[in-house]
Amino acid sequence: MKILIIHGPNLNMLGKREPDIYGAMTLEELNSLLTKEARAMHAQVEFFQSNSEGEIVSAIQDAMDKFDGVVINPGAYTHTSVAIRDALLSSGLPVAEVHISNVFKREEFRHKSFVSGVSVGVVSGFGTDSYHLGLRGLVNYLQSRVS
Amino acid sequence: MKILIIHGPNLNMLGKREPDIYGAMTLEELNSLLTKEARAMHAQVEFFQSNSEGEIVSAIQDAMDKFDGVVINPGAYTHTSVAIRDALLSSGLPVAEVHISNVFKREEFRHKSFVSGVSVGVVSGFGTDSYHLGLRGLVNYLQSRVS
Amino acid sequence: MKILIIHGPNLNMLGKREPDIYGAMTLEELNSLLTKEARAMHAQVEFFQSNSEGEIVSAIQDAMDKFDGVVINPGAYTHTSVAIRDALLSSGLPVAEVHISNVFKREEFRHKSFVSGVSVGVVSGFGTDSYHLGLRGLVNYLQSRVS
Amino acid sequence: MKILIIHGPNLNMLGKREPDIYGAMTLEELNSLLTKEARAMHAQVEFFQSNSEGEIVSAIQDAMDKFDGVVINPGAYTHTSVAIRDALLSSGLPVAEVHISNVFKREEFRHKSFVSGVSVGVVSGFGTDSYHLGLRGLVNYLQSRVS
Amino acid sequence: MKILIIHGPNLNMLGKREPDIYGAMTLEELNSLLTKEARAMHAQVEFFQSNSEGEIVSAIQDAMDKFDGVVINPGAYTHTSVAIRDALLSSGLPVAEVHISNVFKREEFRHKSFVSGVSVGVVSGFGTDSYHLGLRGLVNYLQSRVS
Amino acid sequence: MKILIIHGPNLNMLGKREPDIYGAMTLEELNSLLTKEARAMHAQVEFFQSNSEGEIVSAIQDAMDKFDGVVINPGAYTHTSVAIRDALLSSGLPVAEVHISNVFKREEFRHKSFVSGVSVGVVSGFGTDSYHLGLRGLVNYLQSRVS
Amino acid sequence: MKILIIHGPNLNMLGKREPDIYGAMTLEELNSLLTKEARAMHAQVEFFQSNSEGEIVSAIQDAMDKFDGVVINPGAYTHTSVAIRDALLSSGLPVAEVHISNVFKREEFRHKSFVSGVSVGVVSGFGTDSYHLGLRGLVNYLQSRVS
Amino acid sequence: MKILIIHGPNLNMLGKREPDIYGAMTLEELNSLLTKEARAMHAQVEFFQSNSEGEIVSAIQDAMDKFDGVVINPGAYTHTSVAIRDALLSSGLPVAEVHISNVFKREEFRHKSFVSGVSVGVVSGFGTDSYHLGLRGLVNYLQSRVS
Amino acid sequence: MKILIIHGPNLNMLGKREPDIYGAMTLEELNSLLTKEARAMHAQVEFFQSNSEGEIVSAIQDAMDKFDGVVINPGAYTHTSVAIRDALLSSGLPVAEVHISNVFKREEFRHKSFVSGVSVGVVSGFGTDSYHLGLRGLVNYLQSRVS
Amino acid sequence: MKILIIHGPNLNMLGKREPDIYGAMTLEELNSLLTKEARAMHAQVEFFQSNSEGEIVSAIQDAMDKFDGVVINPGAYTHTSVAIRDALLSSGLPVAEVHISNVFKREEFRHKSFVSGVSVGVVSGFGTDSYHLGLRGLVNYLQSRVS
Amino acid sequence: MKILIIHGPNLNMLGKREPDIYGAMTLEELNSLLTKEARAMHAQVEFFQSNSEGEIVSAIQDAMDKFDGVVINPGAYTHTSVAIRDALLSSGLPVAEVHISNVFKREEFRHKSFVSGVSVGVVSGFGTDSYHLGLRGLVNYLQSRVS
Amino acid sequence: MKILIIHGPNLNMLGKREPDIYGAMTLEELNSLLTKEARAMHAQVEFFQSNSEGEIVSAIQDAMDKFDGVVINPGAYTHTSVAIRDALLSSGLPVAEVHISNVFKREEFRHKSFVSGVSVGVVSGFGTDSYHLGLRGLVNYLQSRVS
Repeated sequence: MKILIIHGPNLNMLGKREPDIYGAMTLEELNSLLTKEARAMHAQVEFFQSNSEGEIVSAIQDAMDKFDGVVINPGAYTHTSVAIRDALLSSGLPVAEVHISNVFKREEFRHKSFVSGVSVGVVSGFGTDSYHLGLRGLVNYLQSRVS
Repeated sequence: MKILIIHGPNLNMLGKREPDIYGAMTLEELNSLLTKEARAMHAQVEFFQSNSEGEIVSAIQDAMDKFDGVVINPGAYTHTSVAIRDALLSSGLPVAEVHISNVFKREEFRHKSFVSGVSVGVVSGFGTDSYHLGLRGLVNYLQSRVS
Repeated sequence: MKILIIHGPNLNMLGKREPDIYGAMTLEELNSLLTKEARAMHAQVEFFQSNSEGEIVSAIQDAMDKFDGVVINPGAYTHTSVAIRDALLSSGLPVAEVHISNVFKREEFRHKSFVSGVSVGVVSGFGTDSYHLGLRGLVNYLQSRVS
Repeated sequence: MKILIIHGPNLNMLGKREPDIYGAMTLEELNSLLTKEARAMHAQVEFFQSNSEGEIVSAIQDAMDKFDGVVINPGAYTHTSVAIRDALLSSGLPVAEVHISNVFKREEFRHKSFVSGVSVGVVSGFGTDSYHLGLRGLVNYLQSRVS
Repeated sequence: MKILIIHGPNLNMLGKREPDIYGAMTLEELNSLLTKEARAMHAQVEFFQSNSEGEIVSAIQDAMDKFDGVVINPGAYTHTSVAIRDALLSSGLPVAEVHISNVFKREEFRHKSFVSGVSVGVVSGFGTDSYHLGLRGLVNYLQSRVS
Repeated sequence: MKILIIHGPNLNMLGKREPDIYGAMTLEELNSLLTKEARAMHAQVEFFQSNSEGEIVSAIQDAMDKFDGVVINPGAYTHTSVAIRDALLSSGLPVAEVHISNVFKREEFRHKSFVSGVSVGVVSGFGTDSYHLGLRGLVNYLQSRVS
Repeated sequence: MKILIIHGPNLNMLGKREPDIYGAMTLEELNSLLTKEARAMHAQVEFFQSNSEGEIVSAIQDAMDKFDGVVINPGAYTHTSVAIRDALLSSGLPVAEVHISNVFKREEFRHKSFVSGVSVGVVSGFGTDSYHLGLRGLVNYLQSRVS
Repeated sequence: MKILIIHGPNLNMLGKREPDIYGAMTLEELNSLLTKEARAMHAQVEFFQSNSEGEIVSAIQDAMDKFDGVVINPGAYTHTSVAIRDALLSSGLPVAEVHISNVFKREEFRHKSFVSGVSVGVVSGFGTDSYHLGLRGLVNYLQSRVS
Repeated sequence: MKILIIHGPNLNMLGKREPDIYGAMTLEELNSLLTKEARAMHAQVEFFQSNSEGEIVSAIQDAMDKFDGVVINPGAYTHTSVAIRDALLSSGLPVAEVHISNVFKREEFRHKSFVSGVSVGVVSGFGTDSYHLGLRGLVNYLQSRVS
Repeated sequence: MKILIIHGPNLNMLGKREPDIYGAMTLEELNSLLTKEARAMHAQVEFFQSNSEGEIVSAIQDAMDKFDGVVINPGAYTHTSVAIRDALLSSGLPVAEVHISNVFKREEFRHKSFVSGVSVGVVSGFGTDSYHLGLRGLVNYLQSRVS
Repeated sequence: MKILIIHGPNLNMLGKREPDIYGAMTLEELNSLLTKEARAMHAQVEFFQSNSEGEIVSAIQDAMDKFDGVVINPGAYTHTSVAIRDALLSSGLPVAEVHISNVFKREEFRHKSFVSGVSVGVVSGFGTDSYHLGLRGLVNYLQSRVS
Repeated sequence: MKILIIHGPNLNMLGKREPDIYGAMTLEELNSLLTKEARAMHAQVEFFQSNSEGEIVSAIQDAMDKFDGVVINPGAYTHTSVAIRDALLSSGLPVAEVHISNVFKREEFRHKSFVSGVSVGVVSGFGTDSYHLGLRGLVNYLQSRVS
C-alpha cells in the first residue's frame, strides 16, 4: 500500500514561522514521523511539497498509477483551486484532506473547500496530528475496501 | 483521562437502517470497539445518546466536572443547534467533532456546523472510523497539553 | 394499511387559541374525524403529538416497523428541524406533509421546509382539511404502489 | 358549484412523454376522471389548457363571472408569471394550486411560486392525484364558506 | 406627433375589478380621456392592449415606423419580461413607463423593472393620472428634441 | 392649496455643472417656472433647498401645518436617508417624489429609494420636467381627494 | 398581576461558568432578587428553566390562563426556535425578551431573534440587570393597559 | 436527418435594427444560408420564429416526432422561460443553444440561461455564425450517436 | 453621576404626531419625568435633540469630559449612521441605546443598528418607558463599575 | 493566419481518464485533427498545454506578436483566474473560449467564467468538437474582419 | 496650484482620543505639516473640517472655482454618503481619498466606499502619513496633466 | 533598510500594451526610478516579477530574512490568492499594497483584495506613482517603528 502525502503552499515554512499557530515541528520532522507511522501500518509514504498550484496538479496526475491513495493538505489552495479538485477527481484515487489548524475557527473564506467534495474524509484542527489521523483514516479505508 | 462520547439524534438507528450510508455496525458494537481502543490509550470512555437537543445540552453540562473531554457526533443538530454550541463552550471541555459521512458531499445546509467553531478539531467522512480518529486526536491533544 | 399521524409543536392547542387562523375544531375532534375517514378507506390511523423535536424523532423511529406511512404536520419544526428530516428519510416510510394554514402566505422563514424534500407530497392551506387530503393522498399512493 | 380547472404549459403532453415522472395517464383521461369525481361532489368542472401565459391570463379573466373557483396547475409559469398571479388575485376567485411532481424535490428555481401567495391552498407531489386532492380541497372550502 | 399607448396584462379589467386599488374608470374611458388630452397637445394617440407578452413584443416592433414614441404600462410583465425590454430597445423609440399603483409600496418583486432601464422616464403611483403625466412627459420630451 | 417643493443636496448647482445630465436651467429659473405653473392650477408653491439631511427633516416638520403637500427631489438622500422618510411619514402630508435623471439607468445603489414607500407617486427621468409632472400629479391627487 | 419568568438553555449554569461574561450571580440568587423586586411592584413571579425547546413550548402553553405576562430569556433558542415564537404568539400573553449579554456584539447568527417579532419589547446587554429592566418594563406595560 | 431551427423573440427584426450589434443580414438571408449549409452536411432544416413563449413551447412539442434535433436561439426567453426549458426536456430531442451576441459581455441578467441545462451544447458570440457553428455541432453530435 | 440623554431626528415631534405609535407624551414632558427619575437615583441628566447627524456627532464629542454616560435614541440614524457610531466609540463613554417602538417588528431595514455594537445595552419597544429602563440600566451599570 | 490553441490544466490527461465524460481521444489525436482542419481553412495552428496558471499567462503574452488569435480551453482556471483574463485582454488578440463538457450542467461554481467577458465567443458542451467549432468560429471572425 | 484638504466627521478629535489607532498628532499639527509639505511642492493648501455631511457637500461645491484638487478623508461618511460622492463628481475636481487606518482590516461595512469610484486614487492605512502620500499623489497627478 | 518590490502577473508587459490604462513607462524604467527614489530615502530596493502565484509565494518566503519590508502589486492575484496572503502573513514583514489603476472604478470582482487585510496600507489609482507613494509610505512606517 503506497500513499502520496502532498503539502500545499507555505507548508515548507512549518516550524519556522508562526509556531503558536502551526507548532514547532518542521516539515522534515513531520515527514519522518509519518514515515514511521506508515511503516507501523504496513504502508509506504512519499512526500511532495510545492507552492505552485500547477505543480500540485501535475504531482496528482503522476500519482495515479503509482499510489493507492493521497493525503493532501491543500493549504491556501483548499479555498481557491478548482484545478486541484479536478486533478484529484480525475485521478480516481481515494483522498484524505487534512488541515493543521481548525479552518472553521478562522476567516469566513476558509470555511469553503473545493477539495472536501472529492475526498473520502476530512480532518481539521488537531495540529500536525491531523496528518497522522488522516493517514490512518485513509489506510483503514483502503484496507476495508480490500477485505 | 475520561472522555464522554455523545451520539446525537438518529444515531441509535446505526446499523439498522441505511447501511449503505452508515455501515452495518450497530451503536453497541461501535461503543464496544471505542471502549477497547480507549483502554489501549489508557483512557476511559462513557457514552450518551439522545434524540433530544435539550438532553444533549444537559449531558454536556453534567460532563463538566466528570470528564476531561468530549467526542461528539451532533448528527442533525450540527447544523441547527446554537444551544449545544453554547453548552460545549460553557463547559470549557476540549471537543472533537466527528461525522460518519462526509457532510461536505451532501446537501448545502449540512456544510455549516455550529459546533466546529468551538471544537479543537473535526473529523468527517471516514465512516464509523471517524469516531476512532476523533477519539485518538482528542486523547493526543489532552496528553500534549499535560506534557 | 396502518398510518401514523404526527402533530408537531403547538398543535395540542388546536381549537383553543387563534381560531380565526386555525379554526375551532380541537385536536381530539380532528383525530376522531380522521379515524373515521381512514376507516372508510380501509386504513387504520394512530396519533402522536409532541412539542419536543426529540420525541418526534423517536416516534418516527418507532414507526418504522409498525406503520406503512406517515402523515406529519411538523408545525414550527418544518422550518428548522434537520433531525426530523433525517428520521423520516431513515425510516424509509412514505410521508405526506400537511399544514393547516397556507405557509406561503406567511413570514418568509416559513416558506422553507426541511421536510418537503423527503416527502411524497405536500398539502398546505386547506385548514384542518389539509390532514384529510394528505391522508387520502398517502393512502392512494400506498395503494397504487401495491397494485 | 362550478370549477374551472386550468392546465398550464406542456401539460397537453401528459401521458405522452416522461411517464416515469408524470405517469401514463393522458390529459383527456385525467379530465374525464375529474369530471366524474366532481359530479360525485355535486360540482361541475370545465377545463382549459394552454402553453401561452397570456391565454391563461385571459381564461382566468373570463372565469370571473362564470365559475366559483379555480384549480390550477400553472406548470412552468408557477415560477415565473406575475401576470397569472395578478389575474387570479384580480378575479377574486378561490384558487387551489396543484402540481403533479413534488416541486420541492426538484431544481431550486422550482421552489418559488408566484401563485401560492394568492391561493387558498397548495397540493404538490401526489402525481395526477394532486388534482383530485386540490379539487376536493377547493370544493370543501367553498361548501364551508356557504354554510 | 404620433404616440402608441400600450396597456399590459390585466389592464383590460380596469374599472371592473379591485376599484379600491385601480379606480373605477374603465380602459375605454381612460383611452378616451387620453385621446382628448393628446389632441390638446397636438399629438395623436393609438392604443393597444394584450395579455400576451409575445403580442406586446410584436406591437412594439410594428410601432417602429409608424409612431414617434411609446407610453407603456407593462403591468406584470414589468418585472419579468426581457423580451419587451429588448423590443423597446430595438425599436429605438422614446418610452415613458407608467404604473397606476405605486409599485414601490407593494411586494418586493415589483420593485424591479426590466423596462425602466430602456425608458426616458417613469411615472408610478398617481392612479390613472400616471398615464396623463407619462404622456405629457413624453410629448414634452419629443418636442424638446425637435427644437 | 399650498405645496412645498424641496430640492435636496447638490441641486443648488443646477444649471451650473454637468449640463449634459441635468440640463442648463438654473434652480432659480426652474422655481420661477414652477411658480407660474402652480398658479395656472390655482395652487401656491414655496421652495426649500438644502445640502443637509437634518435641515430637510426640519423643513418637512415645519411644513406640516402650513402646506397641503410636498414635492421632493431628495437627491442623493433618496438612497440613504431613513430620517427624511420618517419625517415625511410623520408629517402626514401627501408626497410626490421626483428625479431629474432616470435613476434606474444609473448605478445599482440608486435603484433603491427610502422615500418611494411613503410617497403617493414617483416621477423619474424627464429632466426638470419631472418637477412639473410631479407637481401636476400631486395637485390632481389633492383635488381628487377633496371632491 | 402574575408574571412567568422563563430561563432558556444553559441558564441553569449561571454563576457557575464563564463569570466574566455572565457574572457571578447564580440563577437562584437572581430569582430571589427578582421575586423581591416584583413584590415591590405588587406583582408575583414564578420561574421556569429548561434546556429543552419542547418543554419551554409546553410551559408557555400552560402559562396562558395562569399568568398575565412572560419575561423570557430564550438563550440559544432565540436564534433558532420558531416553535417558541409560535407558542408565545398563540398564548396571547405580553412578552418581554431579555438577554444578559449584548447579543449585537457577538456572532452574526446571534443578531437575529425569532422572539423579538412577537414581544412587546427587548432588553439586551445589561447583565442580569436585563431581567430587572425587562420585568419592570413588562409590569409598567401591563399597568398602563389596565388604566 | 431533420433539424428544426427556432428563432426566439425579436429575431424577426434581424438586419433591420441595431446592425452594429446583430449585423446587417436579415433572418431570411440567414435561413437561406443555413439551408445551404445543412444540405452540404446531408441534413434538412426547417425554421420557426415567434415572439410568443407559448408558441415556441408548442412548436417544440410538435417537433418531437418530426425532427432529430433542435437549434434554438431563445433570445430574451433564454433568461426567463422555464416553460421552454420544460418543453425541450420533455421533447427528448438533442438541443444546440445559440446566441448571436456574447451574452456574457452584457447585463448580469443575461448571464443565466434556463436552456443551457437541457442542451447538448451552447454557442455564443460569433454573430450569425453562431447558428452555423451550433448547427454543425448538432449534426456532428447526431452522427456520432448513430455510429 | 451625569448622564447626557440624546434624542435623534424627528423626536422633537413626540406627542404631536402619530400618537398611536409613539404615544401622547411630548418630549418636554418625557424629559421632565426623566429628570425626576434620575434625581431619585442620585444622578443628573441633561438633554440634547437634533435632526442633524453632524450635530449629534458634535454633541457626543462635547460630552466626553462632562458626562459619565450617554442614553441615546438615535432614531432613524440608528440604521444609517457610522459617524454616530464612531463618535460614541471614540468618546469612551458607556452607552444605553433606546427605542420607543419595537424596531424588530418594523421594516427589515430597521433591524440593523450601527449603534448596538458600541453600546453597553439596548432597550426597544416599551414606549417612552424604554428611556426610563435604559437610564436605569446605565446608572446601575455605572454604579456597579464603581463598586 | 496563425492561431494558438491553449489547453488548460488536466487536459494533458484527455483520453486517459474519465472517458465517459471527456471521450476516448487523446490530446495528441485532437491536436492532429485540429491541425488538419486548420489547414483546410488556410490557417496554421500551434498548441500549448500547461497545468500552471502562470505559464498560461506567459504563453498568452508570448503569443501577442506571433499569432492572430487564440482558442483556449481554460479548464478549471475558467472559473478562478483573473490573471488569464487580464493576459488575454492585454494581448489584444481575439479569443474563442471552448469547453468539452457543458459547464452549465455541472456544479454551480462552473457556471461563472472569467474568460467569457474578454472573448469573441464561447462554445461549450460538444465534446472535443467544441475545439473544432471554436477554431472555425475564430477563423471566420478573423476573415470577416479582414474583408 | 491650490488644494483643499477636507477632514470628515470625528477627525477634529485627532490626537485627543484613541491614540493607539489614530496616533498622538492633533489635527492642527497635521495641518501644519501638510502646509509645509505642500509649499515644498510649490502648492498651497487650505483646510476644512466638519462633522456634518451637508456642510462637507457645501464646502466641495464652494471649492469648484477656487481649487485645483481635493484631498478628502471622508471618515465615516466614506461608507454612507452618496451626497458627498455626487458633490465631488459634480465639482469636476480631481480627488485623492485618504484614510488614517487601514479600512480593509476593520468591520465589513468599512470595506465599501462611495468616494473611491469618483477619486483619482486612494491611500489607506499609513496613519496620518496617508494624507501626505495622498497630497503628493494628487500634486503629481495635477502636474502630469499640465505637462 | 532593504525593501523587496514584487510585481505580479502581466506587469512585465508594462509600457508595452494598453498604455492608456497603465501608462507608457516600462517595468525597467519604473524599477530604475524606484531605485533612485529609494536611495534618496537611504533605502535599498530589489525587484521580483512573476506571472506564477507559486513563485511569488516562494519569493515572499525567501524575503523573510533578507528584507525589512515588501511593496507588492499583486495584480490579478490580489483578488484570488489566499496563498500570497498566507505567505505575506507568515513572513511577518510589513507590506505596502499598490495598484496602478484605481481598482474601485473597475469590475466588481476587483473590489475585493485578499492582500489588504495583511498590509500596513494600500495605495491605488495614481498610475505608476502608486509604487512611489507605497514605497515612501512603507519606508516612513519602518522609520517610525525604529524611533
